[in-house]
Amino acid sequence: MELSALLKVARGDVPAELLLKNAKIINVFSGEIIESNIAIAHSRIVGIGKDYAAEKVIDLSGKFVAPGFIDSHVHIESAMVPPPEFARAVVPLGTTTVVTDPHEIANVLGLEGIRYMLDMAKHNPLSVYVNAPSCVPSTHMETTGAALHWYDLENLLNEEYVLGLAEVMNFPGVVNGDEEVLDKIRAFKKRVKDGHAPGLTGKALNAYAAAGIHSDHECTTVDEALEKLRLGMYIFIREATNAHNLLPLLPMITPENNRRICLCTDDRHPADILDLGHIDYMVRTAIEKGVPPITAIRMATLNPAEYFGLHDRGAIAPGRRADLVIFSDLNDIRAEKVYRGGQLAAENGTVIPWERPPRETVLRSTINIDWRKIDLSIPAEGTNVHIIGAIPNQLITNNIVEPAKIENGFAVADVNRDMIKMVVIERHRATGNVGKGFVRGLGLKEGAIASTVAHDHHNLVVAGADDESMLTAAHAVADTRGGLAVAVGDKVLAQVPLPIAGLMSDQPIEIVRRQMDELLAAVHQLGSPLHDPFMTLGFLALPVIPSLKLTDMGLVDVDKFAIVPLFTND
Amino acid sequence: MELSALLKVARGDVPAELLLKNAKIINVFSGEIIESNIAIAHSRIVGIGKDYAAEKVIDLSGKFVAPGFIDSHVHIESAMVPPPEFARAVVPLGTTTVVTDPHEIANVLGLEGIRYMLDMAKHNPLSVYVNAPSCVPSTHMETTGAALHWYDLENLLNEEYVLGLAEVMNFPGVVNGDEEVLDKIRAFKKRVKDGHAPGLTGKALNAYAAAGIHSDHECTTVDEALEKLRLGMYIFIREATNAHNLLPLLPMITPENNRRICLCTDDRHPADILDLGHIDYMVRTAIEKGVPPITAIRMATLNPAEYFGLHDRGAIAPGRRADLVIFSDLNDIRAEKVYRGGQLAAENGTVIPWERPPRETVLRSTINIDWRKIDLSIPAEGTNVHIIGAIPNQLITNNIVEPAKIENGFAVADVNRDMIKMVVIERHRATGNVGKGFVRGLGLKEGAIASTVAHDHHNLVVAGADDESMLTAAHAVADTRGGLAVAVGDKVLAQVPLPIAGLMSDQPIEIVRRQMDELLAAVHQLGSPLHDPFMTLGFLALPVIPSLKLTDMGLVDVDKFAIVPLFTND
Repeated sequence: MELSALLKVARGDVPAELLLKNAKIINVFSGEIIESNIAIAHSRIVGIGKDYAAEKVIDLSGKFVAPGFIDSHVHIESAMVPPPEFARAVVPLGTTTVVTDPHEIANVLGLEGIRYMLDMAKHNPLSVYVNAPSCVPSTHMETTGAALHWYDLENLLNEEYVLGLAEVMNFPGVVNGDEEVLDKIRAFKKRVKDGHAPGLTGKALNAYAAAGIHSDHECTTVDEALEKLRLGMYIFIREATNAHNLLPLLPMITPENNRRICLCTDDRHPADILDLGHIDYMVRTAIEKGVPPITAIRMATLNPAEYFGLHDRGAIAPGRRADLVIFSDLNDIRAEKVYRGGQLAAENGTVIPWERPPRETVLRSTINIDWRKIDLSIPAEGTNVHIIGAIPNQLITNNIVEPAKIENGFAVADVNRDMIKMVVIERHRATGNVGKGFVRGLGLKEGAIASTVAHDHHNLVVAGADDESMLTAAHAVADTRGGLAVAVGDKVLAQVPLPIAGLMSDQPIEIVRRQMDELLAAVHQLGSPLHDPFMTLGFLALPVIPSLKLTDMGLVDVDKFAIVPLFTND
Repeated sequence: MELSALLKVARGDVPAELLLKNAKIINVFSGEIIESNIAIAHSRIVGIGKDYAAEKVIDLSGKFVAPGFIDSHVHIESAMVPPPEFARAVVPLGTTTVVTDPHEIANVLGLEGIRYMLDMAKHNPLSVYVNAPSCVPSTHMETTGAALHWYDLENLLNEEYVLGLAEVMNFPGVVNGDEEVLDKIRAFKKRVKDGHAPGLTGKALNAYAAAGIHSDHECTTVDEALEKLRLGMYIFIREATNAHNLLPLLPMITPENNRRICLCTDDRHPADILDLGHIDYMVRTAIEKGVPPITAIRMATLNPAEYFGLHDRGAIAPGRRADLVIFSDLNDIRAEKVYRGGQLAAENGTVIPWERPPRETVLRSTINIDWRKIDLSIPAEGTNVHIIGAIPNQLITNNIVEPAKIENGFAVADVNRDMIKMVVIERHRATGNVGKGFVRGLGLKEGAIASTVAHDHHNLVVAGADDESMLTAAHAVADTRGGLAVAVGDKVLAQVPLPIAGLMSDQPIEIVRRQMDELLAAVHQLGSPLHDPFMTLGFLALPVIPSLKLTDMGLVDVDKFAIVPLFTND
């Protein structure tokens, strides 16, 4: 943008490129709806007013125009597609800017993965800002593809699209002054630092806030959210595929505090994005439940723009980017047209094709397993075993102890007791590590499922009724450079290839979604009562959430924060 | 502040240094008043809560605690004392941070003057942030002590206490794309850029906002303020000695828009600060007139903190500076104690003595006049002259034409027609420039007044009934290295020495105020009906405000933006 050229249009000496006429403009500053025209040039809004001329005039006939929506915190990887496909899915829904934490790919590929996301985010109809992942790996009890120290993250400070430090999940580390975590906070002293502190309260929460963590997206109750807001933290209300916080938190919103509240999707699967929506879904739902429309829109626009210091967007005002959402019904906001940087980016739910970057970014395969070292068998070293007790729709698990089922000197699955075998095969460094255990709650009666989406280390997790099915599923996943698979015996029933870091597909999001539907149908055939046992499985390997988890290093008693033996005398 | 030490206190492992107990805490985030305790250590608030221990506990017995007040835009020079004395005056009133535009001293001493202000601001109980003066000089029709181009201002970008670009008064230059002005805006692209655009509206205002000017403190009506706010500009409501905008603008404040409104004093004389107050006076008055107390406090705390990106202050929350104001009555806020950085800084209206910086900053004398070149006489070159028509309480003037009073071939003052002689003697470079003219409205019946406070070039302006009195007053001012003086014949009746750049005293503010009182009494004796004819005089030399002004280069017809002859045939 050349300032003098912009000013010529703004003061009216030169016609605008585009004039959106007869608009009902959502003014997020004044809280008003203003009937006027929007003049656009050089990708910016240059003026609001009735007497601008333009090369192209579009009469909106009284439709509403809001600023483009901002997703304050999202892991794009959870949509199982890379940024261009993600953009194609969410831009038609009115999302024009996201702040992504690429910590999934960072656990696999480190800085190379983050740079891949930054590269792939270019030349899309979506502004993708990145926060530097603060917790790679999440603990010392897992093998990841990379570790990011403060001196690694510091490299990102000069990247144009890097804003700050992503969710500091190691909140005990912050509170207790772990120098490794504090060094990261120090490195990002002058930047935003996002939080992640479920249930943290009292003095510990004061410490977390005092460290300069200025947001949280993990609140589940109004009381929790208000305590954090009062201590100066922005509350990012989250509506993820696996965490539905929007409805429980809406009652917290008041005229006095709403400026400190933003919206985010965190982890959202293709089906939810395609069927329900993205940030638009949250805005729509908030309004439906009684939040004043401009307040709801502000939580998706001006508020995050202010929090992140993105003063070139988040409002319809001269000098700001012409990122705009056009819709007809304030009480049922559905984007009809989306402009980004003054260009029509989507219409009636479909993105306008854009010029893709000429260079394809090539990523190495991230499945690095020496199968000669892999052995899934569990020699019986006792009579009782720990069983991970999965709880429907929760990330926490129970720690159950029951007698093992022993066959030929080996502990095996017992589907009658819903005691499925689970293994975590290290897939980054070909160490041959295999963590082994049992899980209850997946409900498989036969066959096996395998996945390289296993938070946060994203090793290859497999659960099943027998070793043959488990190996079939695991091999199927490895053969597609990562992904999800369902198998019985030597037969693969369904699979979702995720060749990009074992996390994302190279196919259009609609195809991924269809593959997911087929995958879930197959696993339901095998007896699982869960809507998505892969999502449950994906968190059974995350050793920062209580009580019992499994990594490639073995069974983790999260309450003890230690690796424990599978067999027990308890 | 060492982060790990801070966290020890925050999480409760180490007692705080200070605990303010039984406080009614103004929570500017939630809009609530919270009864709790405030734990302080390492100059920061470390925690809010009932169960902190501390080395020192002060029971506030239910008194209110608000964040320290922030003055969003002030020319400290207008208080006629340098930063330490200014601090001594305003800190007891609850002001703990100011953003100053040192453009008065910059017109006299350029970068040296700005650095003087930065130096003098250190080690005070007041945080003084500086915005870089954008309009030095204000026009080409005046001689100043310095000119600041973008490449001069750029030097300030790395100064810790420099925030952004100060009021861009050359709004026609911005709107019309004057490259000299745009270069300054470009240099401060990533910083805040304050505005000054009285009455600007429509497309021109759109252009001004599009240039990235994000505030304005010149609004005089609600309509003007709302138009600017809707275009994304913060509104700084101003209550200056010479501009009273608070009461007219209070009706603009709504729950929806108040987050974008701040308070500022701009130019405030010693008597107003000492008698009425500072930002506290504005907060108090706003509440008295019906603004909700927390909203009023927020305009003086969180809002400017957010606007300026000063995220370490403006609220009472962990990690923020312990800048606090304690008071008893929410409906009549009068600071009883003021803490700054956790230290008691003032109590019952009096600042706690602080250690002054050991090094005195030495400034050269700024009065540089070659008196041999100075001639105040006006040879009669016609019969009619232009007369500057001063208007009470306004900065604009009328352009009057009347017959001159001619004596011995010279045009002289005619007190019977209130037609006083006025001269502007260049005092920076000893050019010998003397602008000459006549003024109506000062009302002097005899004698003369002289001043080196003459916006913005601060040359030596003199007005009087006869040349002898004028020279006496002028010499008196020069003898004290600048200041204000009243004289009759060869006798000086009263004077205020302002040896620091001809703008500020080296005496305590109370003495300056007494000197000012005596000065005004003297000038009233000479017949002036104005409360402060020096303030009127100080703006008669400012060639950016219509219609007729006088600089050292001569009479300026501001409407024509040109120097014009004194004598006319009209």
